[in-house]
Amino acid sequence: MDGGPDYVPPADRSATFDNDGTLWVEQPMYVQLAFALDRVKALASEHPEWKDKQPFKAAIEGDMKTLAASGEKGILELIMATHADMSPAEFQQIVSDWLMTAKDKRFERGYTKLVYQPMLELLSYLRDNGFTTYIVSGGGIEFVRNFSEPVYGIPPAQVVGSSIKTKYEEVDGKPTLIRLPEMNFIDDKTGKPIGINQHIGQRPIAAFGNSDGDYQMLDWTTAGEGPRLGLIVHHTDAER
Amino acid sequence: MDGGPDYVPPADRSATFDNDGTLWVEQPMYVQLAFALDRVKALASEHPEWKDKQPFKAAIEGDMKTLAASGEKGILELIMATHADMSPAEFQQIVSDWLMTAKDKRFERGYTKLVYQPMLELLSYLRDNGFTTYIVSGGGIEFVRNFSEPVYGIPPAQVVGSSIKTKYEEVDGKPTLIRLPEMNFIDDKTGKPIGINQHIGQRPIAAFGNSDGDYQMLDWTTAGEGPRLGLIVHHTDAER
Repeated sequence: MDGGPDYVPPADRSATFDNDGTLWVEQPMYVQLAFALDRVKALASEHPEWKDKQPFKAAIEGDMKTLAASGEKGILELIMATHADMSPAEFQQIVSDWLMTAKDKRFERGYTKLVYQPMLELLSYLRDNGFTTYIVSGGGIEFVRNFSEPVYGIPPAQVVGSSIKTKYEEVDGKPTLIRLPEMNFIDDKTGKPIGINQHIGQRPIAAFGNSDGDYQMLDWTTAGEGPRLGLIVHHTDAER
Repeated sequence: MDGGPDYVPPADRSATFDNDGTLWVEQPMYVQLAFALDRVKALASEHPEWKDKQPFKAAIEGDMKTLAASGEKGILELIMATHADMSPAEFQQIVSDWLMTAKDKRFERGYTKLVYQPMLELLSYLRDNGFTTYIVSGGGIEFVRNFSEPVYGIPPAQVVGSSIKTKYEEVDGKPTLIRLPEMNFIDDKTGKPIGINQHIGQRPIAAFGNSDGDYQMLDWTTAGEGPRLGLIVHHTDAER
């Protein structure tokens, strides 16, 4: 495919948390973590209590070792503190503003430029041949929707992802949705086929993955009747 | 619009439960209840305990008064006993088979023929003018998906609805989804804007409703910036 961004080899994905801060748009969960860390720093002045409280202290200080040690629970705390208590529209604005300026530290490029080129070619090829394409991400559905269309050509309604709960509230007589700091659905591993069934209502003809969290999606896809295709790209070429 | 089914006037919707068994595809929840009642009867021989147990006894005997008195809790029990413990594909087959043969008692016609004609015309008109159309139903998403495309021209992925939970399981090494007798999401009242935001990721430009459960969806739709349209048809012409 001509005219796309320069090809950039994907990193070794065996590290789930990379000390030099390399995050991949192919792994929206990692981009989302970079977003959460930047948001914690941006909001720190409004939360003086964070400077003595983990995992916020580690996030503010860029202490990745302590942050990694805080585990899933710590990461989830950062996500909830930076993704909730606002409307979906407010969240969308914050994420869009961030994507326009944030840069990957290793490559010094915006995250939406660090896209696995063969996936873009595959998506175009499938669409040119009458397929409807979806992203099925472990990342947050309302996070990924901010770049799915400009980067992958996939409209917001065709994103399946993890989500937090939302409540409906009338504020000064105006109907408003508010994002809540509470998990709703985790679209990973067994959650992927469940999310696809819920959101799309059909078993895919073909699915493509790059992580262990894609296994059940690929297994379920290829277990359907008739011709099916499941493909996994396991990156092992970080060193060149 | 030429060539559609004969026009049939909608019933008075003020009754939430109609003793003569009239159910409306415009109100998939009522069609779904008719389906649940027929399924209870079909499954009664496999469940001898039902003939002495409410609300199953009332459902088997067609005792609508006792059934109505069992309230939401009773109805939910019937729904769970007839909609769960099977794969989405098995459920789809059962619903499709039922829709091919079941008939509304008053009009002696299949439920998919008893469709509010102006809604079909509106949907066609909107699609002809470049709009994407969705159904946002209080009924079950996997129930409505069985007739959304042939009846309303709306593909399964563009149905937003209530749902029960689903689990992923390997049965004899084969990945399988199983519908669980447990509510996941109620797509009614405040649930409608929440469901739209979750599923579509955008506030609609226009929304059309026919029940009190549509109020929040209409309010949220029309509260968006720029030109918006919200319309409710409140049926009051059951007697002619």
